[in-house]
Amino acid sequence: MRKKKPAGADAKLSRAAAQRLSQYLRCLAVVGPTASSADLARSVGVSDAQVRRDLGALGHLGQRGVGYDVTALAAALRKTLGIDRPWRAVLAGVGNLARALLRYRGFRQHGFEIVGLFDADPAKIGTTVDGLTVEPIGRLAARATDLRVELGVITVPADAAQEVADQFSAAGIVGILNFAPVLLRTPAGVVAVTVDLTVQFEQLAFLVTRREPTAPELRPSARGGLEGRRSR
Amino acid sequence: MRKKKPAGADAKLSRAAAQRLSQYLRCLAVVGPTASSADLARSVGVSDAQVRRDLGALGHLGQRGVGYDVTALAAALRKTLGIDRPWRAVLAGVGNLARALLRYRGFRQHGFEIVGLFDADPAKIGTTVDGLTVEPIGRLAARATDLRVELGVITVPADAAQEVADQFSAAGIVGILNFAPVLLRTPAGVVAVTVDLTVQFEQLAFLVTRREPTAPELRPSARGGLEGRRSR
Repeated sequence: MRKKKPAGADAKLSRAAAQRLSQYLRCLAVVGPTASSADLARSVGVSDAQVRRDLGALGHLGQRGVGYDVTALAAALRKTLGIDRPWRAVLAGVGNLARALLRYRGFRQHGFEIVGLFDADPAKIGTTVDGLTVEPIGRLAARATDLRVELGVITVPADAAQEVADQFSAAGIVGILNFAPVLLRTPAGVVAVTVDLTVQFEQLAFLVTRREPTAPELRPSARGGLEGRRSR
Repeated sequence: MRKKKPAGADAKLSRAAAQRLSQYLRCLAVVGPTASSADLARSVGVSDAQVRRDLGALGHLGQRGVGYDVTALAAALRKTLGIDRPWRAVLAGVGNLARALLRYRGFRQHGFEIVGLFDADPAKIGTTVDGLTVEPIGRLAARATDLRVELGVITVPADAAQEVADQFSAAGIVGILNFAPVLLRTPAGVVAVTVDLTVQFEQLAFLVTRREPTAPELRPSARGGLEGRRSR
């Protein structure tokens, strides 16, 4: 009989579970000092039992009638997700999406910092965007060490994405956030997450078609907490 | 004993399942004329058994040794997801992200068309972006009927997102794709999908920390099919 597992001990945590943990963390930012499993369940759109299972696996069981301590739970979630430390990233492909990402303050607030910009277009190289000078993509391998980056963001067109992923991998980058609508092939030890915007739109079409009553954002929260998000 | 369910009959299909269906559909675009459950499992990063369960629920069981007929399966997936017809959308907040979305050809290819742009900034109103003239957000309610839109995309800053969601709902829009990092409150009958880019970055940090060997993009595909995506 095992008792509490230490946070981060469950190497088999699925991606779906990790995504729920991110969402619990987002919810914790706007409630407090304690949160019930019902609060978390409602905002993420899963069952109370699912929340208790997910958080029980981190060794956080909450207290009946009191709920989870928000500060302690947020720390455990950050540790499990690997975001209890900062991450440095470079970005390749300085177009509109890149500009939008650079101006999205949420990244830096959550410990992700874009510290280098690369592009293949001579017209963009040497220009400055949000305080960073765009460098030629060919210099990436040489610069990655100086920049001490582990992550790379791909915002180039689809037909250039695999080549950039290869350059990232060769430069020692171990994680790629890919916004190009292609599935990337990466060598062992390099992981890629593709953000496929079409999938998001399809999810919306699905929910509108079915009008799922359990969609988390369908119902106004019974608590006042979420209102606070408007000011973020 | 029920036999085959017709496609689209399972009203209880979860969002997670719907997301897998989108991903199978994406995979089908690059293989063919038949695909095995192993092909689909490998590209989406789930088990063969999961694929068979998901597609079995649509009444598509495939044929042992032959696999699924790609054309028929893609049609069933589109019907289940509600994308067997076009969807028209308006967008509010014409900044860098909006420009990136407008230039993202994947949307139109998959049946989503942005047909109206709205903003509150007098400097943007009247300007033309990708062939559409930016209109004042106050005119949305009056224009929504002419434009025959059901969906709305929110790319305004976080502190303006709820107000735009309210204006969308009042204008008769029933589905909202929200890129602002806030959870929206919407009336019954209006669904919202929030694309939280921080969650995506956190998923990447999680995968890099754990280096999950099951991440779908970790391994080069054993088939040649995916290579074809580069030219998309």
